[in-house]
Amino acid sequence: MRTITHIDRMQKVSDDLKKEGKTIGFVPTMGFIHEGHLSLIDIANKNADVTVASLFVNPKQFTPTEDYRCYPRNLARDKKLLKKRGCSIFFYPDVDAMYSKYFKTEVYVRNLSKLLCGVRRKTHFKGVTTVVAKLFNILKPDIAVFGQKDAQQVIILKRMVEDLNFDVKIVIGPIIREDDGLAMSSRNIYLKKKEREEASVIFKSLKEAEKMIHDGERNASRIKKRMRRMISTKKSAAIDYIRIVETKELRSVNEINGEILIAVACFFGKARLIDNIIINL
Amino acid sequence: MRTITHIDRMQKVSDDLKKEGKTIGFVPTMGFIHEGHLSLIDIANKNADVTVASLFVNPKQFTPTEDYRCYPRNLARDKKLLKKRGCSIFFYPDVDAMYSKYFKTEVYVRNLSKLLCGVRRKTHFKGVTTVVAKLFNILKPDIAVFGQKDAQQVIILKRMVEDLNFDVKIVIGPIIREDDGLAMSSRNIYLKKKEREEASVIFKSLKEAEKMIHDGERNASRIKKRMRRMISTKKSAAIDYIRIVETKELRSVNEINGEILIAVACFFGKARLIDNIIINL
Repeated sequence: MRTITHIDRMQKVSDDLKKEGKTIGFVPTMGFIHEGHLSLIDIANKNADVTVASLFVNPKQFTPTEDYRCYPRNLARDKKLLKKRGCSIFFYPDVDAMYSKYFKTEVYVRNLSKLLCGVRRKTHFKGVTTVVAKLFNILKPDIAVFGQKDAQQVIILKRMVEDLNFDVKIVIGPIIREDDGLAMSSRNIYLKKKEREEASVIFKSLKEAEKMIHDGERNASRIKKRMRRMISTKKSAAIDYIRIVETKELRSVNEINGEILIAVACFFGKARLIDNIIINL
Repeated sequence: MRTITHIDRMQKVSDDLKKEGKTIGFVPTMGFIHEGHLSLIDIANKNADVTVASLFVNPKQFTPTEDYRCYPRNLARDKKLLKKRGCSIFFYPDVDAMYSKYFKTEVYVRNLSKLLCGVRRKTHFKGVTTVVAKLFNILKPDIAVFGQKDAQQVIILKRMVEDLNFDVKIVIGPIIREDDGLAMSSRNIYLKKKEREEASVIFKSLKEAEKMIHDGERNASRIKKRMRRMISTKKSAAIDYIRIVETKELRSVNEINGEILIAVACFFGKARLIDNIIINL
């Protein structure tokens, strides 16, 4: 696995790969690699000739009160895991090279960026779309692989790609879970023992919602109420939101119908965890 | 000259050109081609293997009170002129294909977009940066050629390209003028005879400013005052702004020093005309 840190160099390498007729599969990460990321590497390997993973803890997608400075990092381990999984190129740019002192440009997807996680994390998705636009221009991928755990991010990035005509195919990898159902996340490291045990209730509440719908329930309020009650039995849980929305404009639905997203954000201690399920009736 | 109207088709053609090792020079236009545009075609021809011109009257860069609907159009003449000047590909997309009903994404360059022309034309530059980002992703040019007449646009687009890591070299063509010095513009067609005669005072005021500086004047206020007085002698002139700014952040300068931009926007009848000069001491 080749490590590239310079933006110009990365662009040149991508150009050369394209001239050789090779396709590029891209997996953007913020590092602290877990099986969720590695499953995206598998998808890239399967769908493109060359897999490039980036590691960039993007300051612009953290709001001022969030965990940018203490976001978990382990470069040596990350590189080892990515290499072992068949990643060919590791792009690891410097924050000052990504954001010069003159930096002024933002890429913003209206409406969608304000909802769900955007209510609490007001500038988060603007930070995501801006850095992904940059990374697309640097890596020039044919496909880019994102995880379904960040369901809203996926919807926003697909919108951005279509609106700005990025010639990149977005591929979504399924959520990878621990044995008890907790969605894998770099932020799970923040969980204390008791919190970690209790956090699996998020997925259990989503499964319960799925079961209710399977059994014929169509009323979104009743489903959310049951989920809220389940999660609230856990002492360390502080629910941020439980929402049931359609997947195009992320508008709340009253009745379950068509393709819907059930999304949860919940604090356990200092860790803010998200999870979701998509149901298509 | 080949005409392409579909976005996917254009991307495919650009990809194929790149695979052949050809470089692409891009001249974006809103049509109603004049010698100013054609001089940019010459520059593209000189600096790239294949010249692509686009014609797209971009609704998003007009503010609601502006001339989007009556913006001058003459497709047949435009195509003839571009072909004659050596343009290889003419990209002419449909407005509904460029902006679907789900469109939500904007590219915005903070601060710079609010100043000078951005004071009156609040959403103008956001429209410009958004459409140019789209066109770059569609045409994948190696170089893109813009005219110096739109001095603020040039500064904003260079900022966007650097900030978002577009792998596109921006080349600037000099202002092309009529015999009496009026900067060529598609909007000059709006000028009535008397207005047309009087409009040449804009360039004369810029030349006067240049002469004052050449003669040792360093006080920006005195220069602007003289320019204002010159332009105000013309009955049909209504000055929007006369500004002297540094070229990095577009901040007003009191004293002439380093690289400065003297920029004028002035209505003559219903035509809002802009012109500028850059001086490097």
